[in-house]
Amino acid sequence: MLLYEGKAKQIYSTDSENEFVVYYKDDATAFNGEKKAEISSKGILNNKISTIMFEMLHENQIETHFIKSLSEREMLVKKVEILPLEVIIRNITAGSFCKRFGIEEGIVLDEPIFEICYKNDDYGDPMLNSDQAVAMKLATRDELAFLREQTLKINELMKAFFLKMNLKLVDFKLEFGKDVNGNIILADEISPDTCRLWDVDTNEKLDKDRFRRDLGDLVQGYEEVLARMNCK
Amino acid sequence: MLLYEGKAKQIYSTDSENEFVVYYKDDATAFNGEKKAEISSKGILNNKISTIMFEMLHENQIETHFIKSLSEREMLVKKVEILPLEVIIRNITAGSFCKRFGIEEGIVLDEPIFEICYKNDDYGDPMLNSDQAVAMKLATRDELAFLREQTLKINELMKAFFLKMNLKLVDFKLEFGKDVNGNIILADEISPDTCRLWDVDTNEKLDKDRFRRDLGDLVQGYEEVLARMNCK
Repeated sequence: MLLYEGKAKQIYSTDSENEFVVYYKDDATAFNGEKKAEISSKGILNNKISTIMFEMLHENQIETHFIKSLSEREMLVKKVEILPLEVIIRNITAGSFCKRFGIEEGIVLDEPIFEICYKNDDYGDPMLNSDQAVAMKLATRDELAFLREQTLKINELMKAFFLKMNLKLVDFKLEFGKDVNGNIILADEISPDTCRLWDVDTNEKLDKDRFRRDLGDLVQGYEEVLARMNCK
Repeated sequence: MLLYEGKAKQIYSTDSENEFVVYYKDDATAFNGEKKAEISSKGILNNKISTIMFEMLHENQIETHFIKSLSEREMLVKKVEILPLEVIIRNITAGSFCKRFGIEEGIVLDEPIFEICYKNDDYGDPMLNSDQAVAMKLATRDELAFLREQTLKINELMKAFFLKMNLKLVDFKLEFGKDVNGNIILADEISPDTCRLWDVDTNEKLDKDRFRRDLGDLVQGYEEVLARMNCK
């Protein structure tokens, strides 16, 4: 039974009470849904790439909702209640950070920037600080401290992983959820829809900015990322 | 010599190298300068109210740029270099916080919310988090920790002060500067232009929201605040 349909994925219930199926769609959206397209095979690529990423993190003792891949477009995951926060790490300036503060793209930051946004399409997923998140009861102080620590750890693992395939991890967005035991674990997806990835030598963008900014064929970029993952 | 002209004040140099004169204008602006008016005697009221506030804080061991009142519209202050940050405390929900997150006005918060904004009119004084402020070299981690601690202290003093005159301190904006010795001290002004003040019994707004939202005569509101200060 379809439980939830997002912009890029659907979530289905299963016979098991503690498991969901994630189905990766071909829909691409940007700018809070203002720009839309269906891009054939994007869902397949993101499912494959996310599977590799979750497996890599699992090997490095990061708990995630991922259980196993079921088909080209489907993965079996642990049931979680998604926290209403988007968690962002920036290693290099790009995207909304540049737009919001009038800063040039491509500046390598001394330390990663950690951001949280309130998942709310009506308000454009606005950024918030810890005091605001706590006041709005979106998370406790302890939960925010855990999210920060965990996300910085994931950043180090992902940065090293992508660098081996000659890719710079510019920034990325994660979502976390509470499992049936109340533990916060990594959920959602990790793909070029949710990470900015630039070629180390040429700075060619191999992520969703190809779609957002019409920088070339999206599937070609995602296929390149997957090919490099499979070759490493 | 005029050194700087802001929306509501002018800063002049003096014969003394370490002192400035602040001149309070009658100009009122809102929504990043989109709404404008000249409101006769506002500058006089804000100079008087700010003087009382700085004196109160000084009595409570808070260092400020204030030296003395010079005339109806002028105060002598220590020379500081203003930090490019607006520091905000919220005790009750209102204003941009409600607009940004779709939250009702008037909710009393369990704990004060501390916010910082990047002082930049071109970008609408965007809110930022600590990581962003540090990355943008607007302040160090230690300076941000000091600003938070100092502002929360000032909030307690101001809340108690206004409550004695039957006013709720809803939220306020502060600016800090570095003095010639490199110490960070409170600067700018503290007035109904920079604080939301509601009557405890009626919730009548006695601050700049009267101008922003056409809620009644602005001068009448500011005069009421000053009258209560002088009676307490």
